[in-house]
This record gives sequence, C-alpha cells and structure tokens, in this order.
Amino acid sequence: MTLASDTTLDDFLGGRLTLEQPSTGYRAGVDPVLLAAAVPATAGQSVLELGCGTGAAMLCLAARVPGLTLTGVEVQDRYADLCRANAARNEIAADIHTADLRAMPTEIRGQSFDHVIMNPPYFDPATGNPSAARDKDTAFRGDTDLRDWVDQAARRLRHKGHLTLIQKAHRLADVLAAMDDRMGSIVVTPIAGRTRYDADRVLVRARKGGRAAFRLTAPVVLHTGSAHTKDREDYRPEIAAILRNGAAFPNIG
Amino acid sequence: MTLASDTTLDDFLGGRLTLEQPSTGYRAGVDPVLLAAAVPATAGQSVLELGCGTGAAMLCLAARVPGLTLTGVEVQDRYADLCRANAARNEIAADIHTADLRAMPTEIRGQSFDHVIMNPPYFDPATGNPSAARDKDTAFRGDTDLRDWVDQAARRLRHKGHLTLIQKAHRLADVLAAMDDRMGSIVVTPIAGRTRYDADRVLVRARKGGRAAFRLTAPVVLHTGSAHTKDREDYRPEIAAILRNGAAFPNIG
Repeated sequence: MTLASDTTLDDFLGGRLTLEQPSTGYRAGVDPVLLAAAVPATAGQSVLELGCGTGAAMLCLAARVPGLTLTGVEVQDRYADLCRANAARNEIAADIHTADLRAMPTEIRGQSFDHVIMNPPYFDPATGNPSAARDKDTAFRGDTDLRDWVDQAARRLRHKGHLTLIQKAHRLADVLAAMDDRMGSIVVTPIAGRTRYDADRVLVRARKGGRAAFRLTAPVVLHTGSAHTKDREDYRPEIAAILRNGAAFPNIG
Repeated sequence: MTLASDTTLDDFLGGRLTLEQPSTGYRAGVDPVLLAAAVPATAGQSVLELGCGTGAAMLCLAARVPGLTLTGVEVQDRYADLCRANAARNEIAADIHTADLRAMPTEIRGQSFDHVIMNPPYFDPATGNPSAARDKDTAFRGDTDLRDWVDQAARRLRHKGHLTLIQKAHRLADVLAAMDDRMGSIVVTPIAGRTRYDADRVLVRARKGGRAAFRLTAPVVLHTGSAHTKDREDYRPEIAAILRNGAAFPNIG
C-alpha cells in the first residue's frame, strides 16, 4: 500500500502492529493501548468500538485476543478509511462503518455485542479550546455528548456485556453521570503518571445489567520514580509489558 | 457530668478529646477524624457541620485549629444532646441545633460559613439493609437524599467557601451527581486500607463558585504492609499523626 504524503506509519506493541495515521490531527498514543489492555475479552467474542479512529484500540485488542469479531464506527471518513487500511495492513478482519453514533447503521442496530469499547473525545465542547485542525478538533472535542456514547453502548451490548472506556480524569463526573440504570457493576481505575500524582486518565468498566457495587480501585501508575528522567524510558514493568508486548492489565479484574 | 448507663466515654486524638457516645447505634470511628483532618480551615473561621452526631468531626477540627466558630445541625435529639455535652466536656464552644436539614433553623439560614463539613449517612435507603437499632439506622442510612445535603451546604457557604465530606467509595457517583453548578473545584481523594486495595472511602472537597478542573488525587493509604497483622497497630506514620495527634492531612491541598 502507498502512503498519503500527510500520514506516517507508526509501530505499536513493539512492532506487532503498524498503523497509518495522519501526520497532524488526532494521533493514537498510549490511551488506546491501555484501553485495549483493560478489555476482558476472550477468544471468539464480539467487540464494537465506538469512535474507532484509525483503529488503534480495536487492533491492539485483536493482537492480544484471537478470533474476535471486530466492528468499528467512525464518523470521520478519513479516519474510517485509514482504519480499514490499517486492519488490512495488519491482516486483521474488521467491519468498519462510517457513521454518526446517533444514526447507527441498520446492520449494527441488528446486532448485540459481548464488548463495547471507546475512547470518547476529551474536551467538553462547552469549555474546551478549539483546535486549529478541524479533524483533530472533532476527534478531541467531539460534538456528541457522552450520554449518547454510553446510550449507544448500552443499546448494543448483550445482557451482562462489558463496556470499557478510557477518559480524562477531569471528566469522571460526566462519565458516571452518563451511566444510566441499564449499566451497573461500575469499576473506576485511576491512571496516574507517577505515585502521588493526580490521576490524569480513568479507565471505566461497567456491565449491562450488572448488580455489583461501584468500585474505585487502586491507581495504575505508569512510570517508576518520582520525576521524569529524560535519558531513559521509565515505564513500570507491567506497563511496558502492555505497551511493548501487548499484555493485558494484571489484576485489573 | 454523669454518664447514662447506655453510653461510653471514648478517647480521640490520643486523649486530647473525650466523647460520650451511645454504646450501641452509630459510634464515631476513624471517618470523622479523617474528615476533620482534611478541612482546610484556618484560625477564626466559621464551620457548619451538617449531621454532626455526637460531634466527633467538628470537635476534632476544633482541637487542631484554634478560634473556630462552630455550628452543628443534628436531627436526632439524643445525638444533639450528647454533642452539646461533648463540646462542654472538652471546653469547646459550639452552637448545636436539633433540626432536620430540610427545615433549617432561621438562625442558621441567616448565616454564611467559611466551611461546611459532613459525613452523610452511608446506606442508600433504596438498597441498604435496615439496621436493628433505629437510631443507628437513621445515622447510617438517613432519610435525606445526598442532594439535600449538598444543596444545604451550597446555600450556607460563602462565595469560595469550602465543602469537605467523607463518604463510602461506592457512593462516589451519587456524591458527584449531587454537586450542582454552584459547587466547583472538586477534588476527590480515595482512602484505601492498603496499597493495591480498592478505596473504601472517598474524601470529597469542593468550593462554592470554584472554577478549577475536577481532580482525582492519589489515594490516602491507611495501613502499612499488604495484610493485617493482628499483634500490632500498623497505621502509616502520617495517618497515626492524624488519629493520635490531631494532625492535618499532609499534602492534601
């Protein structure tokens, strides 16, 4: 495949996965890899990713768990096209739909899934600073309320199916408020750069029809030490195993 | 003072404070002491405690910060009476009102406060198991919605005044949902028994008219080690300093 002049090819999971991404605009970083590592999927299950972008999360998940049936929905043409190309490039079967969450294709509305995963736009349209790049703007800020995202997840999950999402920690209240009576057994895991730091991300898991009490787990801490050391990578071993080898989160269940 | 036959005298803060409490029913433990240690009050400020019980939180706070003007509201006669007696016993001035939160005395409605503190009932009336002891039942489960508690706090705080509360971690979503547009600069601090354990309490702080982004801090961990050792107390030094010496939380701001 040839690359467009404004994209780059980037390695994920220590090179097990290669993704073509726009040079500017939204580019997958650590978040979708952590998201994929937190999904409790087992071989042969079905996974729907809402807002799949260029496919980092779903393809990282597929690299870890064999035989998944992958479906993705992405509103931006260009990202959806890149996602299809990325799935093919990595020889992973995935059914990618270019669609708005609020106008889900009939084909998807006819299905239910074992897992829904998502990394919804980060900046609240009411308060976020507009980005210079329009695509980036939509991918970061979105124009779909978090409630719509969770509502779509709840509609598409089978009974006892799992929702797994990652979000900026400052939106935790919005995420929890978006969980309606259909979703339960909510587990929030803070993600912090270092011990004693505030969380900057939260992993949130929930089950459709779940009845277990809300849990706030110990944080996942990404880096060793108490300050950044420029001359070497300092991910904790369990995080390096996720980012470099495609491991699952240890003890996150 | 003589004790009723169904109360006990209990030491707090290493004996700096002595509280008479019912032998059965709601008895103050670690939570009100941690709550008091998290309140950013300075000498001479005014503090309103909603649901003050026998006064553990407000009196622990007064033991640390000199010259506070203390006001308490407690719906149960017996606890309000004990709270008055406990303030007198410890030579701390406090104005205690026996009243329901939803029918706040005119005298209080005419005031605004630098701080509101609270340790609202823990069990959701919709799901909690009724307790055998009626008093304990009200103190634990309450019959006043968390939104009423936060609403009363917001009404009584001065602009930029501080709300500090402690709550079971499983009610975090309810606490956040109860924070309306009047309250901002929300900071959630998980409290866990040990490293790697789920949080079992959350300290939640907020300011009336606050504009800072929501924060989820690193957890406060109570005990050293990874398991309970029966033959010795194993509070971490900074927690022991709070419980035994009436210290403030370090670095919680």
